[in-house]
Amino acid sequence: MKIGILGYGNLGKGVECAVKNNPDMELACVFTRRDPSTLKLLTAGVPVYSVADVEKHKNDVDVLVICGGSATDLPKQTPEYAKYFNVIDSFDTHAKIPEHFANVDKAAKDNRHIALISCGWDPGMFSLLRLYGNCILPDGHDYTFWGKGVSQGHSDAIRRIEGVKDGKQYTIPVQSALEAVRAGKNPELTTRQKHTRECFVVAEEGADKARIEKEIKEMPNYFADYDTTVHFISEEELKKNHAGIPHGGFVFRSGKTGWDKEYNNVIEYSLKLDSNPAFTSSVLAAYARAIFRMNKEGQTGCKTVFDVAPAYLSPLSGEEIRAHLL
Amino acid sequence: MKIGILGYGNLGKGVECAVKNNPDMELACVFTRRDPSTLKLLTAGVPVYSVADVEKHKNDVDVLVICGGSATDLPKQTPEYAKYFNVIDSFDTHAKIPEHFANVDKAAKDNRHIALISCGWDPGMFSLLRLYGNCILPDGHDYTFWGKGVSQGHSDAIRRIEGVKDGKQYTIPVQSALEAVRAGKNPELTTRQKHTRECFVVAEEGADKARIEKEIKEMPNYFADYDTTVHFISEEELKKNHAGIPHGGFVFRSGKTGWDKEYNNVIEYSLKLDSNPAFTSSVLAAYARAIFRMNKEGQTGCKTVFDVAPAYLSPLSGEEIRAHLL
Repeated sequence: MKIGILGYGNLGKGVECAVKNNPDMELACVFTRRDPSTLKLLTAGVPVYSVADVEKHKNDVDVLVICGGSATDLPKQTPEYAKYFNVIDSFDTHAKIPEHFANVDKAAKDNRHIALISCGWDPGMFSLLRLYGNCILPDGHDYTFWGKGVSQGHSDAIRRIEGVKDGKQYTIPVQSALEAVRAGKNPELTTRQKHTRECFVVAEEGADKARIEKEIKEMPNYFADYDTTVHFISEEELKKNHAGIPHGGFVFRSGKTGWDKEYNNVIEYSLKLDSNPAFTSSVLAAYARAIFRMNKEGQTGCKTVFDVAPAYLSPLSGEEIRAHLL
Repeated sequence: MKIGILGYGNLGKGVECAVKNNPDMELACVFTRRDPSTLKLLTAGVPVYSVADVEKHKNDVDVLVICGGSATDLPKQTPEYAKYFNVIDSFDTHAKIPEHFANVDKAAKDNRHIALISCGWDPGMFSLLRLYGNCILPDGHDYTFWGKGVSQGHSDAIRRIEGVKDGKQYTIPVQSALEAVRAGKNPELTTRQKHTRECFVVAEEGADKARIEKEIKEMPNYFADYDTTVHFISEEELKKNHAGIPHGGFVFRSGKTGWDKEYNNVIEYSLKLDSNPAFTSSVLAAYARAIFRMNKEGQTGCKTVFDVAPAYLSPLSGEEIRAHLL
């Protein structure tokens, strides 16, 4: 399978690593909006092309992994490149999924390609676990917790505050809430009761730290609804202790079975990831394999993880997965 | 959807409850090897038929859930009834899955039916989680722990010992092993290091308890390879405190990502079930919905959970699951 990458940031690099870790895949090329000569890939001998030349290389790639941002890149890129390739993205703007799905579906179907949107771990694996949980336990409650992990959006929000040189934000699930859900107590939880936010901030020299802390804690949407802790640290400390992008989280489905719904059941799924983009791109790679096969069987149009039979993800045959994993 | 049940034991009753809890399903009939007049269903107005009359009712049922045992019932029943119905079973004799699959596949295909085998939670949901984990993290380790829960096979083994009136066995995962796996330490674990076994035994009056305990602890395959605890209790105590059939367990995939495999990742899935058969049959009900739809689309032959796209499990439309669960 020949994989193409469009966009060589953290996620694109993650896909490059995932391709290396899957022996049935090879990296065909990388497309960039930057000057291709400025990109230095990890993989030797792989060409870098300008996105302007995408169409010329449409026969070089089996599946193109589009590694743009959800806010402005993917709504344009995924329908556009679904004209030339089977494509996969990690679109995560929840409210706009129906619109994105419709646009991508049309472009993919018109060109007999397949496109998988909103893939990764949330949306992605967490969505799958929510779906399985809801179908098995129709009478129940869903809970999703994120963290402990770095939220890029919240870290960016901190860095936009005047007097902040750099900063990193961790989203942390509230342990007592997790325990109550795990025990099948089906608690009603407010935003504040589910997660806390911890910020590590490097202030500019002479900046008013009290004002920065206040601005962070009162920032609407991002921090105001949470118990937030702010630590001022040195730039060296930030680099040394907070350089990584770990993340993870928990999906629970808690529900009743039995004639009188007399039995409790708790389903829990959790992820602990040293690197969020490296894991996300590992999910993308497995689904790239799946859609390549589905397209070879004649399937076209827009899909999500819900539409992919698990067997398509595996490099092994049906006999092998039944023998070793069933 | 009209569901039929073949075999009205714990699992069959569980399916009856699951049908009640899924508004798009109704129980069409129950088939039994016993005298139908002796069966008292929970659901009012549903006919009970002899298995001898199965063929007469082939048009009354959309999916037949076969609730026999894996040792001798299912290898005969599933291929036989796949001639007349779409069928689903919970066959769990691992070594014989390829043979069972082949037999069922032929019968189902010849009659344009669909058949799903080895469904439930293990095999079933745990298998799915092993597959997803292996595909996302190709360089990693699998761990499956069972319990805390009642093992029917081990309880039966205790009850066969001379001088034992009744007994129940709990399989318990070793907490320190769970913690090591959860921490990403990838331990090598022997059978003894993964699970302990706890037995509650009611001895016949005057029986030699020391001999019974020794026989349990030294029983090959069942107990000899485990640290086993034996408690002698009264019949009343067994009825009061050990009447349930709880179970559950854990599936882990622990693996590396990154260019130099520098990142650790731990995926954990766990179940805590008040009633093993009630949960297993809830999984069967969701997959009955899936295969009914797949058959309506023209799919035939033998399938496993690996072959079922998750969307088929849900009573909701594609638009709805994308809007609410993705």
